[in-house]
Amino acid sequence: MKTLINNNVKNIIRDTLKLDEALNSQEKQFKINTDFLSNENIENHKQLYKGYIDNFNKSNLKLDSVEKSQSNSNHSEFRSLKLDETYNLNGVYLHELHFANIGDPNSQIKMDSLSYMRLARDFGSFDNWQKDFLACCNAAQCGWAITYLNTYTQTYMNAMVDLHSNNVPFGSYPVIVMDVWQHAYYRDYLKDVNTYSRAMMKQLRWSVIEERVMKADKILQVIRGQV
Amino acid sequence: MKTLINNNVKNIIRDTLKLDEALNSQEKQFKINTDFLSNENIENHKQLYKGYIDNFNKSNLKLDSVEKSQSNSNHSEFRSLKLDETYNLNGVYLHELHFANIGDPNSQIKMDSLSYMRLARDFGSFDNWQKDFLACCNAAQCGWAITYLNTYTQTYMNAMVDLHSNNVPFGSYPVIVMDVWQHAYYRDYLKDVNTYSRAMMKQLRWSVIEERVMKADKILQVIRGQV
Amino acid sequence: MKTLINNNVKNIIRDTLKLDEALNSQEKQFKINTDFLSNENIENHKQLYKGYIDNFNKSNLKLDSVEKSQSNSNHSEFRSLKLDETYNLNGVYLHELHFANIGDPNSQIKMDSLSYMRLARDFGSFDNWQKDFLACCNAAQCGWAITYLNTYTQTYMNAMVDLHSNNVPFGSYPVIVMDVWQHAYYRDYLKDVNTYSRAMMKQLRWSVIEERVMKADKILQVIRGQV
Amino acid sequence: MKTLINNNVKNIIRDTLKLDEALNSQEKQFKINTDFLSNENIENHKQLYKGYIDNFNKSNLKLDSVEKSQSNSNHSEFRSLKLDETYNLNGVYLHELHFANIGDPNSQIKMDSLSYMRLARDFGSFDNWQKDFLACCNAAQCGWAITYLNTYTQTYMNAMVDLHSNNVPFGSYPVIVMDVWQHAYYRDYLKDVNTYSRAMMKQLRWSVIEERVMKADKILQVIRGQV
Repeated sequence: MKTLINNNVKNIIRDTLKLDEALNSQEKQFKINTDFLSNENIENHKQLYKGYIDNFNKSNLKLDSVEKSQSNSNHSEFRSLKLDETYNLNGVYLHELHFANIGDPNSQIKMDSLSYMRLARDFGSFDNWQKDFLACCNAAQCGWAITYLNTYTQTYMNAMVDLHSNNVPFGSYPVIVMDVWQHAYYRDYLKDVNTYSRAMMKQLRWSVIEERVMKADKILQVIRGQV
Repeated sequence: MKTLINNNVKNIIRDTLKLDEALNSQEKQFKINTDFLSNENIENHKQLYKGYIDNFNKSNLKLDSVEKSQSNSNHSEFRSLKLDETYNLNGVYLHELHFANIGDPNSQIKMDSLSYMRLARDFGSFDNWQKDFLACCNAAQCGWAITYLNTYTQTYMNAMVDLHSNNVPFGSYPVIVMDVWQHAYYRDYLKDVNTYSRAMMKQLRWSVIEERVMKADKILQVIRGQV
Repeated sequence: MKTLINNNVKNIIRDTLKLDEALNSQEKQFKINTDFLSNENIENHKQLYKGYIDNFNKSNLKLDSVEKSQSNSNHSEFRSLKLDETYNLNGVYLHELHFANIGDPNSQIKMDSLSYMRLARDFGSFDNWQKDFLACCNAAQCGWAITYLNTYTQTYMNAMVDLHSNNVPFGSYPVIVMDVWQHAYYRDYLKDVNTYSRAMMKQLRWSVIEERVMKADKILQVIRGQV
Repeated sequence: MKTLINNNVKNIIRDTLKLDEALNSQEKQFKINTDFLSNENIENHKQLYKGYIDNFNKSNLKLDSVEKSQSNSNHSEFRSLKLDETYNLNGVYLHELHFANIGDPNSQIKMDSLSYMRLARDFGSFDNWQKDFLACCNAAQCGWAITYLNTYTQTYMNAMVDLHSNNVPFGSYPVIVMDVWQHAYYRDYLKDVNTYSRAMMKQLRWSVIEERVMKADKILQVIRGQV
């Protein structure tokens, strides 16, 4: 690999380099307080989430020692592990964001909140955002509806994700996340994803979302070179 | 939709809300100076990129007026347009990042650069990053190899993307982008994606990458609440 | 289009050509007699199946009049409709095959049946087929486990399909079909796809499967030029 | 696994069961005689095809010994191997069908051929089939356009496949196959898939296609219980 890049590498600070420990995702705890989901649904969902953590940690760990020079697009351990790594990583991340932003029986959004203003600005009105987000919930094929900052358009957009990692925008910071896999609602709603989604949207935990949007807005300032 | 969320919306600042103009992506110009790609390859590639811009603008515009209440996961105009919007948006964004970070005949990475240090830290060594990135180039099925900041793991990771939007991590800020669709190399390399990728990696425009990594590191500070 | 193919078309029998009526899929009735699924699960599942019929008919009909010369891979109505046509067509076909081959409380397979002999032959033993099929049930990401005749290998193989149309072999005649979308089992089994699949496998309607295998074997004779 | 299905298995003919040898795909030779593709394109394409054979054989062989009881949908060797098996199997099969049905400089279709009559019948006219097939060529995202007998609709339909195994109908017997991966045309046509496809369609080897359609028609008779 010596010849991979040219040799104009200047030797200056080697000692600042420390290898981080292997990535290791840890299970988090969530309180979901809602009459719109049964306890067994919630409990089952948390166990599912644990599975993604385990499998992300496993696939990520195996990638450390896989033979990378044998990688190819048709059949290689590297490719298989990368598929699983991304799939499970998204599974972990999106579930954590979902659990943290649903189930608030006192859900309330203020019109002077950054969340409200940004959604209203980028979707025309807050109501437009709601309709568009609900449309994403109804359109995903076992997947996710996600409001996120797109680092290319520099606006908040809605994504409709299939499974965990298909139809996903690159360059994204998620702020509102709704699980619309069938596992999220079938126990309680059977095929009625629309009613489930509306119920969840009524109880969005806007205090958590607000913190995310505040970070997203700072990220936007960074991208624009304003910070 | 009145009942979608509860009514505890406080009326405070309405006048700050202004609807942004429709998203409209504009073609950018890139200078790619390399002996490793033929002119006709480069010229063809730029025309392909234009196509993504046109189609992102078209699909995004149509989404403004599509009937969202008819959205469903089996067959709906909303779903079709969202698929195309994300596909073309990634097509635009990733091509711009790719064109901007290749084709530097004086490519040089300094060991005291943030890019070098971050890659060395998160991949164990700079050489490990190179091997892993090349493995991603070889593993993608008509897609992309991308080094990016993952906003969940808070580390720099490599992604192996199929087509434009499959196997994509959510929560990402891309810093090094390599097009490994067959359209990127077949004219000049036929099926030898490995030689093509190594050639491109020798001429990475590290000055551009450094700016991206500096932003990525600030984004990380935002996420960690340090800014 | 005159020039698309060469003009050596001989005019002989024009009058034998009659345009078939538009494809129009009709809902079929199924009796599923099992203690392993709740009635509401079964009823909900049948309604879901109806949705695929409607959407296959709709997308197929629209394809008749869509502007085909505008077709392209980035954003075109033709492409969107073809995606939906195949997705819903598989949704219809596979559900019909699934409903027809489950729910037999008197399930019984005879060792002198063609089904038994073919599965035993092509999987090493009948037990191997069972283990492999169950592994497919557990491995699909919202999808299907399917035993089918592969027209290339000319053997019976198991397929693990994601959603309705991903990871699907070309050249196939399905003989045993199991729905392992989460919608098939979550109401009754939550995330325990393994127990659900084993329960369904205990009640396979082998009389129906036998008829399919008899046809599959004849198809194989046709392919081999023996008929 | 004893309990997986009920025990009503009757012991009759055990000795008729013989385990077939492991599937092992062998490279075939093809003569492609055309001015529309460069020799280096054709040669490169044949080498690509060889790769699919090797990788199908490898993944299929590994599946014999993989631990099937560990199979799951998030991260398991069984799932990874099944993905690769189907991908490479389609890669082998479709390439063989493609090579065998292109490159006939004396291409000629007779109006009294079964191919002509069936395409005219099921697409309204032969010209309609041509336009629809070309639309599929233009619409696939690195994939295939395929005319095939659909065993559910019992008609000839066109499929637009992405990569090798996405958006694929279940229950299919392919009769006309066109490779529209970028690897098939970029060397000679750059991004002009339309001109490439029209060129290939002018030289379809209808004698080979006719044999396939004759088999497909017999398969249809089998499905309809007429044989």
